[in-house]
Amino acid sequence: MSIIIRGGTVVNADRAFKADVLCFGDKIVAVGENLDAPASATVIDASGQYVMPGGIDPHTHMNLPFMGTVTADDFFTGTAAGLAGGTTTIIDFVIPSPQQSLMEAYHQWRGWAQKAAGDYTFHVAITWWDESVHRDMGTLVRDHGVNSFKHFMAYKNAIMADDETLVKSFRRCLELGAIPTVHAENGELVYQLQQDLIRQGLTGPSSHPLSRPPAVEAEAANRAIAIADVLHTPVYIVHVSCQESLEAITRARANGQRVYGEALAGHLIIDDSVYQSEDFEFAAAHVMSPPFRSKQHQAALWHGLQGGNLHTTATDHCTFCAEQKAAGKNDFSKIPNGCGGVEDRMAVIWDAGVNTGRLTPSEFVKVTSANAAQIFNIYPRKGLIAVGSDADIVVWDPQGTRTISAKTQHNKGGFNVFEGRTVKGIPSTTLAAGKIVWHQGELRAVEGAGRHIDRPAFKPVTAT
Amino acid sequence: MSIIIRGGTVVNADRAFKADVLCFGDKIVAVGENLDAPASATVIDASGQYVMPGGIDPHTHMNLPFMGTVTADDFFTGTAAGLAGGTTTIIDFVIPSPQQSLMEAYHQWRGWAQKAAGDYTFHVAITWWDESVHRDMGTLVRDHGVNSFKHFMAYKNAIMADDETLVKSFRRCLELGAIPTVHAENGELVYQLQQDLIRQGLTGPSSHPLSRPPAVEAEAANRAIAIADVLHTPVYIVHVSCQESLEAITRARANGQRVYGEALAGHLIIDDSVYQSEDFEFAAAHVMSPPFRSKQHQAALWHGLQGGNLHTTATDHCTFCAEQKAAGKNDFSKIPNGCGGVEDRMAVIWDAGVNTGRLTPSEFVKVTSANAAQIFNIYPRKGLIAVGSDADIVVWDPQGTRTISAKTQHNKGGFNVFEGRTVKGIPSTTLAAGKIVWHQGELRAVEGAGRHIDRPAFKPVTAT
Amino acid sequence: MSIIIRGGTVVNADRAFKADVLCFGDKIVAVGENLDAPASATVIDASGQYVMPGGIDPHTHMNLPFMGTVTADDFFTGTAAGLAGGTTTIIDFVIPSPQQSLMEAYHQWRGWAQKAAGDYTFHVAITWWDESVHRDMGTLVRDHGVNSFKHFMAYKNAIMADDETLVKSFRRCLELGAIPTVHAENGELVYQLQQDLIRQGLTGPSSHPLSRPPAVEAEAANRAIAIADVLHTPVYIVHVSCQESLEAITRARANGQRVYGEALAGHLIIDDSVYQSEDFEFAAAHVMSPPFRSKQHQAALWHGLQGGNLHTTATDHCTFCAEQKAAGKNDFSKIPNGCGGVEDRMAVIWDAGVNTGRLTPSEFVKVTSANAAQIFNIYPRKGLIAVGSDADIVVWDPQGTRTISAKTQHNKGGFNVFEGRTVKGIPSTTLAAGKIVWHQGELRAVEGAGRHIDRPAFKPVTAT
Amino acid sequence: MSIIIRGGTVVNADRAFKADVLCFGDKIVAVGENLDAPASATVIDASGQYVMPGGIDPHTHMNLPFMGTVTADDFFTGTAAGLAGGTTTIIDFVIPSPQQSLMEAYHQWRGWAQKAAGDYTFHVAITWWDESVHRDMGTLVRDHGVNSFKHFMAYKNAIMADDETLVKSFRRCLELGAIPTVHAENGELVYQLQQDLIRQGLTGPSSHPLSRPPAVEAEAANRAIAIADVLHTPVYIVHVSCQESLEAITRARANGQRVYGEALAGHLIIDDSVYQSEDFEFAAAHVMSPPFRSKQHQAALWHGLQGGNLHTTATDHCTFCAEQKAAGKNDFSKIPNGCGGVEDRMAVIWDAGVNTGRLTPSEFVKVTSANAAQIFNIYPRKGLIAVGSDADIVVWDPQGTRTISAKTQHNKGGFNVFEGRTVKGIPSTTLAAGKIVWHQGELRAVEGAGRHIDRPAFKPVTAT
Ligand SMILES: [Zn+2]
Ligand SMILES: [Zn+2]
Ligand SMILES: [Zn+2]
Ligand SMILES: [Zn+2]
Ligand SMILES: [Zn+2]
Ligand SMILES: [Zn+2]
Ligand SMILES: [Zn+2]
Ligand SMILES: [Zn+2]
Repeated sequence: MSIIIRGGTVVNADRAFKADVLCFGDKIVAVGENLDAPASATVIDASGQYVMPGGIDPHTHMNLPFMGTVTADDFFTGTAAGLAGGTTTIIDFVIPSPQQSLMEAYHQWRGWAQKAAGDYTFHVAITWWDESVHRDMGTLVRDHGVNSFKHFMAYKNAIMADDETLVKSFRRCLELGAIPTVHAENGELVYQLQQDLIRQGLTGPSSHPLSRPPAVEAEAANRAIAIADVLHTPVYIVHVSCQESLEAITRARANGQRVYGEALAGHLIIDDSVYQSEDFEFAAAHVMSPPFRSKQHQAALWHGLQGGNLHTTATDHCTFCAEQKAAGKNDFSKIPNGCGGVEDRMAVIWDAGVNTGRLTPSEFVKVTSANAAQIFNIYPRKGLIAVGSDADIVVWDPQGTRTISAKTQHNKGGFNVFEGRTVKGIPSTTLAAGKIVWHQGELRAVEGAGRHIDRPAFKPVTAT
Repeated sequence: MSIIIRGGTVVNADRAFKADVLCFGDKIVAVGENLDAPASATVIDASGQYVMPGGIDPHTHMNLPFMGTVTADDFFTGTAAGLAGGTTTIIDFVIPSPQQSLMEAYHQWRGWAQKAAGDYTFHVAITWWDESVHRDMGTLVRDHGVNSFKHFMAYKNAIMADDETLVKSFRRCLELGAIPTVHAENGELVYQLQQDLIRQGLTGPSSHPLSRPPAVEAEAANRAIAIADVLHTPVYIVHVSCQESLEAITRARANGQRVYGEALAGHLIIDDSVYQSEDFEFAAAHVMSPPFRSKQHQAALWHGLQGGNLHTTATDHCTFCAEQKAAGKNDFSKIPNGCGGVEDRMAVIWDAGVNTGRLTPSEFVKVTSANAAQIFNIYPRKGLIAVGSDADIVVWDPQGTRTISAKTQHNKGGFNVFEGRTVKGIPSTTLAAGKIVWHQGELRAVEGAGRHIDRPAFKPVTAT
Repeated sequence: MSIIIRGGTVVNADRAFKADVLCFGDKIVAVGENLDAPASATVIDASGQYVMPGGIDPHTHMNLPFMGTVTADDFFTGTAAGLAGGTTTIIDFVIPSPQQSLMEAYHQWRGWAQKAAGDYTFHVAITWWDESVHRDMGTLVRDHGVNSFKHFMAYKNAIMADDETLVKSFRRCLELGAIPTVHAENGELVYQLQQDLIRQGLTGPSSHPLSRPPAVEAEAANRAIAIADVLHTPVYIVHVSCQESLEAITRARANGQRVYGEALAGHLIIDDSVYQSEDFEFAAAHVMSPPFRSKQHQAALWHGLQGGNLHTTATDHCTFCAEQKAAGKNDFSKIPNGCGGVEDRMAVIWDAGVNTGRLTPSEFVKVTSANAAQIFNIYPRKGLIAVGSDADIVVWDPQGTRTISAKTQHNKGGFNVFEGRTVKGIPSTTLAAGKIVWHQGELRAVEGAGRHIDRPAFKPVTAT
Repeated sequence: MSIIIRGGTVVNADRAFKADVLCFGDKIVAVGENLDAPASATVIDASGQYVMPGGIDPHTHMNLPFMGTVTADDFFTGTAAGLAGGTTTIIDFVIPSPQQSLMEAYHQWRGWAQKAAGDYTFHVAITWWDESVHRDMGTLVRDHGVNSFKHFMAYKNAIMADDETLVKSFRRCLELGAIPTVHAENGELVYQLQQDLIRQGLTGPSSHPLSRPPAVEAEAANRAIAIADVLHTPVYIVHVSCQESLEAITRARANGQRVYGEALAGHLIIDDSVYQSEDFEFAAAHVMSPPFRSKQHQAALWHGLQGGNLHTTATDHCTFCAEQKAAGKNDFSKIPNGCGGVEDRMAVIWDAGVNTGRLTPSEFVKVTSANAAQIFNIYPRKGLIAVGSDADIVVWDPQGTRTISAKTQHNKGGFNVFEGRTVKGIPSTTLAAGKIVWHQGELRAVEGAGRHIDRPAFKPVTAT
């Protein structure tokens, strides 16, 4: 029942130090040098390695129903892939259809998530508004461990929230001690640009980024931040992909406002040249929103993480296979949006972040787990190596290498945006809830072993 | 028929120089030193004085129908007051009710304006959208001398334009060679804040600024600018009142975008302490939107004019008498919004701008006439002292003083926001269309002497 | 030998939680709920109180030789006052005279500090440059626990470092793993403005802020940051007092640069109206550099702390009595610069920061101890309540109040810039190195009990 | 004696209009449609062409003594090349050696300039300071038509001005009504980086840009602006080459400060890839300071011109032939700094600016002549097509093309940074002082025909 990780360097958000880590049941029970351990304890040798909190991916879409089909990954394959990559918790999204009851949608998603191999919890999207939505938000916060609500500012004629919904929902969040989050793109502009491009016969995937330029994203980010400012709520911007959005966040933070930003592993690494491919399948596989951006934006995102204006890294893991992507063969706006990454996030951020000197190991922990845990109020249960915390641990081998490929990945979808990239720095062992789920390349994920993590409401932090 | 202005210093936007100015009919026919003039010419002695283009107020509301009544000033009293203050041209607004035909509204306003004593021209507001609006915009530009359209981002449930309307109308402006203008305030937030304040029993005029904080204005300014950026149109922001809106403009201009900003004389001079008055009549008389701001914002607006990030000065002249303002006695949101100023703008900006060293006389001409004439395409007919330009001229006595008061003003409404302020620098003579309409304190305005000024469409300047 | 603090809420930089804290010797030996303790342990009841790391004041000047005299506080009175206020560690400054050997100066200061009642450590100032300075910097880092060097960009004709010295010293810091810090004011401009003011007969204390306007500070901050950027060193800006300096820091951080900023308690609370006093003694008592600023700058500094662009709070504690200040009776530039505050910092920041909602308790710990400990590499020995950390602890009574006054303060100098301010939130008990040194209003400081804290060099963090 | 330019479109900074232009002697005597002209008048057919003020290049170095030799172009060949390209006035630099009398240097340069074919005037550099410099600045302004002084913040151990000199000279400029200008690079950092690179054996031209990164330029620009701000002087930044410097200017202007910026044609068009050439001669030919930058900076500079944060375009024309450049064969820091361009500036800016839609023709006139004329107080004599202005006119054929090449250029030096670029839009005729000096590809420059242009002092514009 006991596991002891010996000889490694524990890395937390605030410091790194030599220590053994003893786990019992699903918890960490001791952290210190030369710990005693029961004779029966399983010993993991971490010498020369880092011992870090398991990753938290605060933005995934497993089993997402979409256009009469669902994403390639369900909660089992998706969370299992995460475990293989050192990510032990995901925060997924309940997305009610307009007019659908929040509670009904919530229970649907909870049902689908039963098979998860790793821990999970849910943001709930506010895609429409009436009194029942107002009421159900309260029920979800009080009785179901939800403390964050998502708002799509894009996807006109579908799940887009207009300003009235944003204002009402943000205010409700404040009452409840929940944090509003937004997908920031001006849906009206996206729609207009899509129409224009198609009218001009520009129907291929290379039109996708043209229909969603940085200004479209920055406008929405700025608007969400202004609403939060006026209503005195915090706000969390998902998948910040461009310099202009980041600048809106940076301005607000410099003004003392509680604004948080999330960067996707893909946006940090991959540039928009992928959309120029002649190969529809390749280009379409990269269609997600916001789209990949030019290298100048990538540099800005890294600066955001370094300077503390971006806080978390995620993937927006949302996989579709080639047949699904083919739905947009003649109209880029019909390509299902989404890419994978839950298995690769930790490694690519270590490789491009720590190996390059951009981030210290402690900063890596901040942006891969600790900050997400704090912002979504599951810290110190998650995001920390300390006595009493969940035994969600990744033993990180800074010398290990892996060449990323769809051929060897554990998730579905048959494509990998990081294909061919060789990373240095990989998980040698992952513990989830005190169990070894990944060891030396062997995945031991168990369907249904994942647990729903209740996230308590907080006293909202209000700017003065 | 001839008038010669002798011995003054002509001030244009680009330079100041000693010259006489000879007018014949409604035009300037000669500018130079020691001009010959017909023996019959009326001679105006401008020695020791500046000879400048007559002011253009690009933002007035004369005869505005409102809540079953109309503003105190009609086109005669309003333009006459302008002439007394050195303003010879106004740009007023045609504001169709939602669903009202643009053409019908346009002809209504043209009818009301027949009695004007000074020249006038119209922005036309886009308060709703359908195919007829699209068509009528074309008619107005091609056949009626309209080259600018106004959009209210505030006034929910009334004339507010949502993003869809903004996008469609901005795009139509681009096709037509017209410039979109916006009243930038997020109407949803204003509405929500008004409801909150009233719910809390805060029904007095001091709630007015609380319902329209700077962030509400800055959000809308930023949004309009983003839409213009994405659609490659220029955009003109009316009544920029706060630092945050100005910063949105400054950012866009620094990025090469064609964005123009207007400051109101009132916002430059008066601060928000007026709303704290115990006297409802006094406080209500200052209710306009955006509201007056703190001194820090005033300093920012002056910097905007100095640095070229703000371009024009206006008044939003829109007068209501005390009985009309009393409609909001029990609910600040029902106080008719508006203040006067068309008579005082030139003098208060000279006094607070030129006398303090903030602006040179040439910069004064830029921000009181030349820039407006260029942006709205009536330059060099207006906004310039040169051969061939309209003989709209103000002879400016930099030593003259006047104490502003509702008791002595020429416009209606019975109130003056600059009450008691003594300004140094006043018009000694005003010529409009070659006629002396103001001389040594005597107003010679003639009802119906004003003309509609057609403004041709331009090739829109697009940023790259 | 043991002390147990029972029933409080431990507040660290990352979280707050209910726990007892057991100390033995000079260390914390256990943290947890319902701890066992030896029967002999002294019990401190912390119920209803916060248990926080003892404050670190990273900027003090005790026993500073100045103009033939020395500051009113020596290392005993100064550190004892700190203990009374919950500050258990100070970082003071060794300031060699130009041409004085660094080692000689260092040993002088170490000698003066022997009598300290609380722990201390030293920044060493680089006030001139030659090969010996280069060499001695190495000796200090390797053998004497120094990891930060200070540079005065002001004080022309005295200790001012020119660009050549800055460049050489910053580079040497990088080699050694030390962090450069700067007093950022352009000494040439200060000198010129002082001369001008005196030439105009403006010799009183009200000229002091006029001789050091924000632009003078911002220029130097920007220059130091640029040098650090080019040389790839981190940099720490002491006593950031104005919005413009903060903006320079914010820009650099947004660009990924490792720049840290310090705010003084005085600059956060007191505005520049103090210099308008008719009373020379009062005005002169507030003369420090940079000077107190207007309220707008204070608001900006708070925003800096909230948004993570400022990191530490300090006092620049440097007390002179009225007789000493009188040296500038006829020439403000001769008033010894400096104010106190080491005893009051924690309480005024809690009162103005936490009680107002600007900062959470964890953020309070960040800015009063944890960040300073991390930046100057004495974390987790200092700045953390955890097993193994020094037993430097303040038990904070959030309901306790105190009215600050020179009459009741423990430091010398006879003046208090916070005079008359009543703060809510005060230390009920302070532990330093495991000893109770302040309890219920009783000061138990022991001369010589303070220890020099060696600060190891770090691998400098370099921006990419 | 008379010349009439018929049928063209006159372009001034404020507008474009159809008009004939009649010149007599060295002046413009009439502008209007269908002008009468003496029968003897030479007629130039400008139909389908623009008629614009002759270009002003506010930054050239003809006949510059340097390292025992002089630049390839003297005042005749340099100004003649300018005339061929439509530039009729240059502002060159008197650069006294440290300790050399300003008056002596001034008269040297005036002597060298006697042979000029086009008009010229001089900035005078302040490279050292004593009472005689203070006095001679006054003499130059009062008696010699100098109203601008230049300060090099780079070139340590040579002509670099330290902060003390900057402060004293800026202040003296204010007294005299002259404008200070700066070459903004931190000389101390450049020196240090040069030493480092050479120490590392990186002695080739590719080290040149590494020794002068953007941060080095931005620091100095910011410092000069801060000094100007504190002393209430305007300031003009020569050859702004990077986004960061431009941002410093933009910030200051947004704050109401009178700051002007100059962009070089080279910096607008050519990127830093030129330094990567294996061919020493090619790479060395591009060595100038500040160096060419990446494309991102070029985009920023264009935005600066569009948004009004940059005001003039120049060339820093300073030609050295291959043998002279070879002096730095083994040490990049010894390559004489400088490139040509005086002949090409107008055409490349038209081609890259107007043809692309970045600039209107009127904006082209602003940035190629009118703004320089206004800033340096020779407007409306120069920079305007109007009665009374100098007959310095370029007839611009927007359809004409030319392929730029060293083989066909009129200036010396044997190299052209724009080699091979085909521009559309070229001068068909140039008039200088009422004489045809360039017509249909034929250069009629006359040695000694150029005149020194006195520039009167102005009342300095002070910010509030
Ligand atoms: Zn999304
Ligand atoms: Zn998503
Ligand atoms: Zn309005
Ligand atoms: Zn209006
Ligand atoms: Zn200091
Ligand atoms: Zn100090
Ligand atoms: Zn230069
Ligand atoms: Zn030069």
